[in-house]
Amino acid sequence: MSQTQNLNIVPFVSVENMMDLVLSIGVEKFLLELCAYVEEDFARWESFDKTPRIASHSHDGVIELMPTSDGKLYGFKYVNGHPKNTKSGRQTVTAFGVLADVDNGYPVLVTEMTILTALRTAATSAVAAKHLAPKGARTMAIIGNGAQSEFQAFAFKALLGVDHLRLYDIDPSATERCARNLESFGFRIDACRSAEEAVEGAQIVTTVTADKKNSTILSDNMVGPGIHINAVGGDCPGKTELHRDILLRSDIFVEFPPQTRIEGEIQQLPEDYPVQELWKVVAGTETGRRSETQITLFDSVGFATEDFSALRYVKDKLSADSRFQNLDLLADPDEPRDLFGMLMRHQARATQAVA
Amino acid sequence: MSQTQNLNIVPFVSVENMMDLVLSIGVEKFLLELCAYVEEDFARWESFDKTPRIASHSHDGVIELMPTSDGKLYGFKYVNGHPKNTKSGRQTVTAFGVLADVDNGYPVLVTEMTILTALRTAATSAVAAKHLAPKGARTMAIIGNGAQSEFQAFAFKALLGVDHLRLYDIDPSATERCARNLESFGFRIDACRSAEEAVEGAQIVTTVTADKKNSTILSDNMVGPGIHINAVGGDCPGKTELHRDILLRSDIFVEFPPQTRIEGEIQQLPEDYPVQELWKVVAGTETGRRSETQITLFDSVGFATEDFSALRYVKDKLSADSRFQNLDLLADPDEPRDLFGMLMRHQARATQAVA
Repeated sequence: MSQTQNLNIVPFVSVENMMDLVLSIGVEKFLLELCAYVEEDFARWESFDKTPRIASHSHDGVIELMPTSDGKLYGFKYVNGHPKNTKSGRQTVTAFGVLADVDNGYPVLVTEMTILTALRTAATSAVAAKHLAPKGARTMAIIGNGAQSEFQAFAFKALLGVDHLRLYDIDPSATERCARNLESFGFRIDACRSAEEAVEGAQIVTTVTADKKNSTILSDNMVGPGIHINAVGGDCPGKTELHRDILLRSDIFVEFPPQTRIEGEIQQLPEDYPVQELWKVVAGTETGRRSETQITLFDSVGFATEDFSALRYVKDKLSADSRFQNLDLLADPDEPRDLFGMLMRHQARATQAVA
Repeated sequence: MSQTQNLNIVPFVSVENMMDLVLSIGVEKFLLELCAYVEEDFARWESFDKTPRIASHSHDGVIELMPTSDGKLYGFKYVNGHPKNTKSGRQTVTAFGVLADVDNGYPVLVTEMTILTALRTAATSAVAAKHLAPKGARTMAIIGNGAQSEFQAFAFKALLGVDHLRLYDIDPSATERCARNLESFGFRIDACRSAEEAVEGAQIVTTVTADKKNSTILSDNMVGPGIHINAVGGDCPGKTELHRDILLRSDIFVEFPPQTRIEGEIQQLPEDYPVQELWKVVAGTETGRRSETQITLFDSVGFATEDFSALRYVKDKLSADSRFQNLDLLADPDEPRDLFGMLMRHQARATQAVA
């Protein structure tokens, strides 16, 4: 049985496999299709088991597990956040994830998720902005031009038609690199010397910085009426990007309130401060943007259902003959109750092979 | 940098690698050494971050994540429990796990844990029995002769010198297989026709059945004075093996009370019913067995620190040149902040290769 069904094998998508997959589909098309999965899962929000992510905090960072299930599939992501990692040539955020069959508990996919997380975060931001940003917005400021910035740009271009970027980073070389990476993809790009300059004329302001502290990337006077703020960088306790006064002037939309109140910009506000849930807007039971002067804020922290959408999308994209390795992950004795016998038979085979 | 340091690579121990590792060390020696790791970690219990496992229950089973950290290493296990799986040729329990460096969040080991869980469960039972079973116990009843049974036998032989087994399973073929698997390893084995018969003359009674319901594998009249009960099978809500009256006559030792009160035999008792924590006995601050007539009960459900011990042991055993594969799990751009550039350079290389 193990020979024919290969119950021990789980497909694994390596970093190289993932890059091949993204490039073969094309970054913009990948993001567009992923947006559809994210949106579909937000619309059926109530069918998911939801829990705040399980975080293990240490001096220099955090390691988190983010599980969820829709009753048919179960997914989780392992993700770390270590702002000082870049000093040792490592990524601030790395991740991998697993999708499993709820009926038998067997994993059906193991995949890198460092690249995939960047893509799903951008896709989720774009889905939120589709419902919240002013109609026809084409100019976006991106404050913080690190690893997530280009993905945000592509997702907003793919889903909303944003084609004018105003970039700012405290490190000018980050802005230069971001601009260079994007220059051949049809964007008009302004490299700015301050956050104040970057937000001039922008209908959408994306903040995506990495410092693990309470910063004021945007101060109150920088935010005019009608703006949509896509606040991506503030995503753990003690890490925020916006001045509190901005929050008080905005209509705030969040993923999963119990998690966002701990990790998002709204950790600066009282626990019962009113916020709207993005899924209700996506499902059509609540209104997103209601007026041209309203300031909308998507207080993004990243939620398990978004990883679930991404895992589901990658699983659907895997064809039988390409872009994954077979991982011998699950013990699969011929007789399920005979795990020890499997070990003994392995020894017998090994001995035979030597003899 | 990525070429020289290989920051993208994580060692992966497949099922086959694990079998090779166990067999090359020898099952009994592996269990003895693993017992030492388990005991060491129980003795420094207070240095661990502890949380009840995060369970996702469904109609036919459960999928769980079990994380913990000692501040230097972080480990978690993915494990399912699906009693009906054997009908489709699958394992009731499969598992895999990850060990990571807390300082940078990077995984340092991915490994199969179906076999490893069986080993660590047995090792933990043996460690508990070392402190709780009557001195000189050599006869053990094993009720439930499925996938876990042989591992229990070997662990008790390795650590305590148990060499006389009395086996019983509702399925006689399971008992036959278990006896056959163990016959050449120096045990005296009695195949019994009932649980009542199996416990006759046994100083240690191990219950390790798999039904997901409240069963009475042991009734009160079957448990005489001085016995140590190693209750392994009752490990999730609604799944118990012992009659409540046995619990009331026993001194009960548990791993992590908040988890055991949900999942263990003591789910049958009031929430404030007094239990002792195994780690305090191991650390020497509390006494295990105090008299020859005392009934001791290890209400085992399995806890994250035990998986941590097992992951730590396997990591220490891996040598540079053997028994693992290199997994391309972590995106590792030359410049950490330039994740998108990594994708573009991959495309450039692919294009070059074609041209």
